Amino acid sequence: MNAGRSLPPVALALIGIGTGNPDHLTRQAVAAMNAADLILLPHKGEDKAELAALRQALCDAVLVAPAPRIAGFDMPVRRSAGDDYLVQVDEWHAAIARCWQDAIAGATDSPAPEAVLRVALLVWGDPALYDSTLRIAARMQPAPVRVEVVAGITSVQALAAAHAVPLNDIGQPFVVTTGRQLREQGWPAGVDTAVVMLDGQCSFEALAPEGLHIWWGAYLGMPQQLLDSGPLAEAGPRIAHTRAAARAQHGWIMDIYLLRRAAQPVSAV
Amino acid sequence: MNAGRSLPPVALALIGIGTGNPDHLTRQAVAAMNAADLILLPHKGEDKAELAALRQALCDAVLVAPAPRIAGFDMPVRRSAGDDYLVQVDEWHAAIARCWQDAIAGATDSPAPEAVLRVALLVWGDPALYDSTLRIAARMQPAPVRVEVVAGITSVQALAAAHAVPLNDIGQPFVVTTGRQLREQGWPAGVDTAVVMLDGQCSFEALAPEGLHIWWGAYLGMPQQLLDSGPLAEAGPRIAHTRAAARAQHGWIMDIYLLRRAAQPVSAV
Repeated sequence: MNAGRSLPPVALALIGIGTGNPDHLTRQAVAAMNAADLILLPHKGEDKAELAALRQALCDAVLVAPAPRIAGFDMPVRRSAGDDYLVQVDEWHAAIARCWQDAIAGATDSPAPEAVLRVALLVWGDPALYDSTLRIAARMQPAPVRVEVVAGITSVQALAAAHAVPLNDIGQPFVVTTGRQLREQGWPAGVDTAVVMLDGQCSFEALAPEGLHIWWGAYLGMPQQLLDSGPLAEAGPRIAHTRAAARAQHGWIMDIYLLRRAAQPVSAV
Repeated sequence: MNAGRSLPPVALALIGIGTGNPDHLTRQAVAAMNAADLILLPHKGEDKAELAALRQALCDAVLVAPAPRIAGFDMPVRRSAGDDYLVQVDEWHAAIARCWQDAIAGATDSPAPEAVLRVALLVWGDPALYDSTLRIAARMQPAPVRVEVVAGITSVQALAAAHAVPLNDIGQPFVVTTGRQLREQGWPAGVDTAVVMLDGQCSFEALAPEGLHIWWGAYLGMPQQLLDSGPLAEAGPRIAHTRAAARAQHGWIMDIYLLRRAAQPVSAV
């Protein structure tokens, strides 16, 4: 709707805000939020009302006068028909970039200002980890004059902290992967530790549980945080049950887990 | 030296403090530092003087009156003779735990107080990632009555933020590994992205560079931060040179890199 209005040059700040605890915010994130002229918040679409309210609460908690302007934008819906997932994602990113630009144009007073407009986006976790914001920013036309990323506490870290457990064994590697990968590829090659994200289906159920230990968390950092851990054979069914009940109760769930197996002996073959 | 003095019950807070930028501190970290009765800082041993000064500067920046007491402790030196690395690490962790306990006893006024003493340790990055603090805490005798972990910004995140690059390709897994693993095991199985930590030897030189891209950073978040990126064939030698010069100049270096290869076609075999 604002497509005819010319945009000012935009400097984007993509700010990691942690997993739902306002105290996850870094001093850098607070400063970057306050340094913005405009903060864009998604207020409809795939986003959950509870999360939208939480983003607004973060702003209320840390913004100081003169506070940046806050503008909402409607998240477009991703086309899910067809089988080319990456093409769908690409189209969706382009559509979101246009929504950003409409929201920026709508929030800009002057029809053609020349000063750089500092626009901030608040990203759950960290913009570098299973998040599309950097890719959407790359779709903006004209391109931003600057893209700054502020790291934030990820659910990987919130999980490890809540369980007081290290991510890695001493000197050993680990994989960060998705529920889909775990289901389709099985246990990741070459590692004894896997962090599993984006899993709506309890994909750990696809694994033979012998020798595996799980540390699970949902709503990490939020008042409704849930934790469970134990040998996968025992904890797995319990977690599946807890997860289904919590999702029914809240209408949504965000969860993550760490799986570790006892180190495997090197095969003599 | 304080072995004869009885220790109060200890509640430990292991606080991730980021990679050297005071603005990496989260609101939670600042609160946990201020909630402590005693902050233990290593002031000798393997630690670098510049890093020790930086830890003190973080305390000066965020502690408010009445500020917790700060006590130093000497880091023991790890025995490096012999070939059983894990046994050496285990002995070393036990020795560090004893140093903590001596420092706590030395900083405790009452000979046998019954109140829980809240002791904080400041951990570079995040206590969950290639850090020994959780394992050392587990060696304390008597055991702490409580161990709380506060997540912090890791060098993995500081690297991705500085380069404004995502860690993962869309929906794809990645490995976090060490320089030693990369040298000894080659390219990690099953992934196209690897984050390499604890690499004192430019282990990327052990890889065939074709098709690989590197994003490198040193002293991330500090004023002397260095960044480089590019195809490994071109950037690798440049980074090796920059790294050697920076290490000679500062007397120490902490660096990390992300390697990504073009997605491999699935073999028909």
